[in-house]
Amino acid sequence: MPSTRVLLIVAAFASSAVLFAAQPADTSHSVLGYKNFAHQQQLDEQFMAVPSPSLARQELKTLTAVPHVAGTPEDYQTALYVAKKFREDGLETQIVPYMAWLNTPREIKVQAYGKSGKLLMTGPTPEHVKGDPYENDPRILPAFNGSSPSGDVTADVVYANYGRLQDFNKLRDMGISVKGKIVIVRYGANFRGVKAYIAQQRGAAGVIIYSDPYDDGYFRGDPYPHGPYRPETGVQRGSIEYLFKYSGDELTPGIASKPGLPAKDRLKPADAPALPKIPTTPLSWHDAAPILKALAGPSVPHAWQGALPFAYHIGGQGHVKVHMLLKMDYKYTKLWDVIGKIPGTEYPNDWVVAGNHRDAWTFGAVDPNSGTAAVLEAAHGFGVLLKNGWKPKRTIYICSWDGEEEGLIGSTEWAEDHATQLAHAVAYFNTDVGVSGKDFNASAVPSLKNFIRSITREVPSPKGGTVYQQWKKSQDDAEARARMTNNGFNNTTYTATHQPVRIGDLGSGSDYTPFIQHLGVPSTDVSSDGPYGVYHSAFDDYAWFVMNADPTFVYEQEMARVFGLEVLHMADASVLPYDYVTYGKELQEYLTAAEAKAKKNGITGLDFAAAIADAKQFTTAAQAVLERQQSESGNLSTFNAQLRQVEEDFLNPAGLPGRPWFKHTVYAPGVYTGYAAVVIPGVNEALDAKNAAQAKAQLADLVTAIQHGTATLQAAAK
Amino acid sequence: MPSTRVLLIVAAFASSAVLFAAQPADTSHSVLGYKNFAHQQQLDEQFMAVPSPSLARQELKTLTAVPHVAGTPEDYQTALYVAKKFREDGLETQIVPYMAWLNTPREIKVQAYGKSGKLLMTGPTPEHVKGDPYENDPRILPAFNGSSPSGDVTADVVYANYGRLQDFNKLRDMGISVKGKIVIVRYGANFRGVKAYIAQQRGAAGVIIYSDPYDDGYFRGDPYPHGPYRPETGVQRGSIEYLFKYSGDELTPGIASKPGLPAKDRLKPADAPALPKIPTTPLSWHDAAPILKALAGPSVPHAWQGALPFAYHIGGQGHVKVHMLLKMDYKYTKLWDVIGKIPGTEYPNDWVVAGNHRDAWTFGAVDPNSGTAAVLEAAHGFGVLLKNGWKPKRTIYICSWDGEEEGLIGSTEWAEDHATQLAHAVAYFNTDVGVSGKDFNASAVPSLKNFIRSITREVPSPKGGTVYQQWKKSQDDAEARARMTNNGFNNTTYTATHQPVRIGDLGSGSDYTPFIQHLGVPSTDVSSDGPYGVYHSAFDDYAWFVMNADPTFVYEQEMARVFGLEVLHMADASVLPYDYVTYGKELQEYLTAAEAKAKKNGITGLDFAAAIADAKQFTTAAQAVLERQQSESGNLSTFNAQLRQVEEDFLNPAGLPGRPWFKHTVYAPGVYTGYAAVVIPGVNEALDAKNAAQAKAQLADLVTAIQHGTATLQAAAK
Repeated sequence: MPSTRVLLIVAAFASSAVLFAAQPADTSHSVLGYKNFAHQQQLDEQFMAVPSPSLARQELKTLTAVPHVAGTPEDYQTALYVAKKFREDGLETQIVPYMAWLNTPREIKVQAYGKSGKLLMTGPTPEHVKGDPYENDPRILPAFNGSSPSGDVTADVVYANYGRLQDFNKLRDMGISVKGKIVIVRYGANFRGVKAYIAQQRGAAGVIIYSDPYDDGYFRGDPYPHGPYRPETGVQRGSIEYLFKYSGDELTPGIASKPGLPAKDRLKPADAPALPKIPTTPLSWHDAAPILKALAGPSVPHAWQGALPFAYHIGGQGHVKVHMLLKMDYKYTKLWDVIGKIPGTEYPNDWVVAGNHRDAWTFGAVDPNSGTAAVLEAAHGFGVLLKNGWKPKRTIYICSWDGEEEGLIGSTEWAEDHATQLAHAVAYFNTDVGVSGKDFNASAVPSLKNFIRSITREVPSPKGGTVYQQWKKSQDDAEARARMTNNGFNNTTYTATHQPVRIGDLGSGSDYTPFIQHLGVPSTDVSSDGPYGVYHSAFDDYAWFVMNADPTFVYEQEMARVFGLEVLHMADASVLPYDYVTYGKELQEYLTAAEAKAKKNGITGLDFAAAIADAKQFTTAAQAVLERQQSESGNLSTFNAQLRQVEEDFLNPAGLPGRPWFKHTVYAPGVYTGYAAVVIPGVNEALDAKNAAQAKAQLADLVTAIQHGTATLQAAAK
Repeated sequence: MPSTRVLLIVAAFASSAVLFAAQPADTSHSVLGYKNFAHQQQLDEQFMAVPSPSLARQELKTLTAVPHVAGTPEDYQTALYVAKKFREDGLETQIVPYMAWLNTPREIKVQAYGKSGKLLMTGPTPEHVKGDPYENDPRILPAFNGSSPSGDVTADVVYANYGRLQDFNKLRDMGISVKGKIVIVRYGANFRGVKAYIAQQRGAAGVIIYSDPYDDGYFRGDPYPHGPYRPETGVQRGSIEYLFKYSGDELTPGIASKPGLPAKDRLKPADAPALPKIPTTPLSWHDAAPILKALAGPSVPHAWQGALPFAYHIGGQGHVKVHMLLKMDYKYTKLWDVIGKIPGTEYPNDWVVAGNHRDAWTFGAVDPNSGTAAVLEAAHGFGVLLKNGWKPKRTIYICSWDGEEEGLIGSTEWAEDHATQLAHAVAYFNTDVGVSGKDFNASAVPSLKNFIRSITREVPSPKGGTVYQQWKKSQDDAEARARMTNNGFNNTTYTATHQPVRIGDLGSGSDYTPFIQHLGVPSTDVSSDGPYGVYHSAFDDYAWFVMNADPTFVYEQEMARVFGLEVLHMADASVLPYDYVTYGKELQEYLTAAEAKAKKNGITGLDFAAAIADAKQFTTAAQAVLERQQSESGNLSTFNAQLRQVEEDFLNPAGLPGRPWFKHTVYAPGVYTGYAAVVIPGVNEALDAKNAAQAKAQLADLVTAIQHGTATLQAAAK
């Protein structure tokens, strides 16, 4: 007899069925992985009836009631809450601790003085808007940059736009040195750690990163509390760990930082390549404006002009001195991943891992707990299926990561901890900023792009029709694109050009990095996006969320459905639904683009023709494999293992030049982009640096990887 | 015996010869119009040695000492000064008066009130910056719009971006009516009269046009007095006469408004199509900001956001009321053209007309007297040649127009006065804003594009090399383009795509309009451009000019040389140097583009293929003519007359639909762009309006014109 809860769910399913009838999901397409999709479809419909807007609302409100920075007691409370929820849903749940070298600000002070010594500003100014009910919580940490060293610096100031490589090079070309200076840069266009990294390379004494209203403030639209954009005093916190070197605890690259790890297995902070060396701190535009306004010297290139009401100058002529005082407390801090497991019956060693982080810089309403609520509602759906007797073919892990904000720490340490088992993992599904608005978005390895498209054709959109249809529509909405915030983190690149709905390349900035780029687990990242000006500020709270992101929690429901279906399909597919034909085509595109870049940069002696021919061979082999995937002939257990092998074939054990932790030859965060992926990074970054010898060696490694993949596919096709 | 002055000139020539030797002008090319260019080249070199930076400086300083609005005593003083200079140079000089219906502001008041009735602003605020030595001249008129009616309106406010047709249509699509409202629009993107015209058509009660810092203020660079851009209180004055209907005195379209013209030959103001019907006034951003900030209602489309430090809204919801009080004194006012003549010997009835206006909204340092100084130095050069015994083949008229700012009045009335003789005119050469910076720019009919290019290859650039070389370079300078001001007046369109150095289409906004578009006189317009934020403000003065535009007056010298060589070559060429091959090719381009537009707009039944074939026939005939131009065979007198006839063949006696004064079938100012040209305007504007019948009729008229031109060319080729 069904329990009361199940009865409620049946009722929810019935009303949802009405929705389905009104706006039927498009399930007429064949679904890769299933010779006959009917049974799965039935299961999907059962599942989709469960995720509940009102429960997601409760969950979000609970999770975001107070700030819960990684490693704090409040963070631990959220771990307990998530673990309890997972257990209620029937997941075998553990709280798994890891240790991380983390900084907390004891004192942060920035002061600016004019030429006459006059005080121009003193900050940081507390974050404040009229009417926000959360902003006075004493547990909100002052805005700071994770992984910044302490420092006490007074220096002349130079403005360097977004702090991209080309920006610093432009300064060099203008004859302006940043050596010994405090560099002030704006957020956006790249990962904040990259800004600090290049400033450090160029000899700067310190870095200020501020939020220009051009990028996520009034120039895009109404600031909070009138709209979604960043208000005058809103600051973007964030880690500047050099994540393009490796992610996770900075002192234990490649090793799980378990509580008992001996001290000798940890690096000294001074020796940790991912740990920045110059003091870096964020500011609001309220605090940055007096500094920028006082800068003299040459006019900026026009594209460097922001939206503050004066003409910007480069500075560097002693018209303004800034005193930065950063006192950081560094210590080893315990973090808590929550790991829920559903054992697989047929392939228990083939893991389907799905995760979202739980820790937040402040309240984390959007980042990350809009994702957590969606994950909880997906888990809720799995719980109902489990109660109805469902048992997945493959083992499912649902993970609530800690310490993502400080450097993808919880996910990285767990991945490093389980590297051997994860060699068999069939997928990692991520969601981070789950819901900041109404526009679905995804990034993925090419083999899972059609997989995501297929799932979004099954899920109804709150806008009408399917998520797929609305996704396609929103990609053509130039106005919506123009009003998006440029916070830095959302710089998805879309290298592939031949696709009906664009899916991004996987760069970095969230927890898929250790899975795909360190271990070669095929990954995806999904979200529902909108203008999100309060990113990493005190205002990323429940009040902002229900005003701007998802007042009725229907996009939470949508994301729970999409995320859940990803897990269900990957766990239960007869044949693993990887599409290697798309992978092969994209490899050809990447190589063709790199060939053009080599030509442009005057680099010769690279045999791109042969490499492209190899990629074509890969595609041809993939075509044969696709036929076998569709016919489901032969021993599927062996076949699935072969299919899984291909992504691993793309790993180069030596890793990328200068960053051996990154083993994937096709995807990595760019050293100079940080968040945004660079495809075939070994080759492309060597070409960018005009290093012909390195480009040649990297192309050879890539070709080897592709050939391995082709051999695996050819074996699988038989 | 040479006079002292001639001796000085010889010395100047000698030093200039050194310059020529250091940076030899490229004269290796053959020059159309001369079988043997050697003699002309010698004359050119004599001429080019004359224009003097130091004299140009004196002339500019004299002309711009005080404000000299058309029709004022100060304006008359400048007429006397120019006439004196012309006479000193040996030109037969007359001051020719015309009458114009002009407004002067008696009182201008703008006040804004918030919802509670609170006063938000009261203006206009006097124009003021720190340290400008001219701004307190009591003869500076308050900022106003020429041709605005008086009015006393209080109404709710709606923001309409640049006030383009698509902006008003966007408001309509958003369900926002401007009926009975005061529309606030920003300067830029089109002619200010167009903004008022569409607002009037849509039923608005009044118009405020303000200068957004995004377009010509701090968003581009440092405002005056720190740089060239518009300061906080700087206002753009300007006429809103509906110049796309006709130019000149609003009450005498097509008729010369001579002092003795009987009253019955003048329209009543209420019946004058070019006279606006709703009160319109300009504001600085200082005064506009409180209004814009108080607007509520929907957020603007992102592209409508300006650079004021808040998110813009559409308004229209009663959150702000504006009271506009405009008291205008209208009266018939006498204007003074200064006309200097050099009689031609061989073809005295074939006029070469060259002009620049003299009247200014305030001091007119750039607009227009930077042009006037260049013209005076060109006349100075002609004077030296005359003294050396030179007599031109064709008659030259050098014209200093009055009342350009109020609606191209001096030029239009003189052109209408001499319409019969101008049927023989071989060219009209214009310069208006002669020098606002270092980048040469030109617009021209296609037949004179290579003519200009050829001349700029002869003139050395202060940057080194020739004007042509630097012109080409500056067109590729994206940074310089981005930092240019968007004042509205400088919206040159470049329709032709096949050219090595782009030359603009002739639209309107300066004195070439009556010549090319009403009478069919082949025309050019040249300038040396830079960021010019003080356009039509109190700050367009000598102090701004020497700080920003041309501190050493070498660009004045350059422009005197270019302008003078245009006149000399056209006056003395054996064969008129029109390049009709380029004209034919451009016609083909225009027709191909129109065909694509018709297709896009779903308009069928137009035989573009036949029209393009006709344009090709024109080109073929032009090719044969070009050979004869090069060989100089046969009777050159008849040949020249035939060559001249072709441009006139492009006139349609019926004029354009709804604006019969505009007779040219290939060039007109756009009804909805005003300054910017619309090529083959009859066809394109009918296509824009999706009026198939009209498009068909206009295409037929155009084809007739092209066929006439072809017939003339074919006769000439024989």
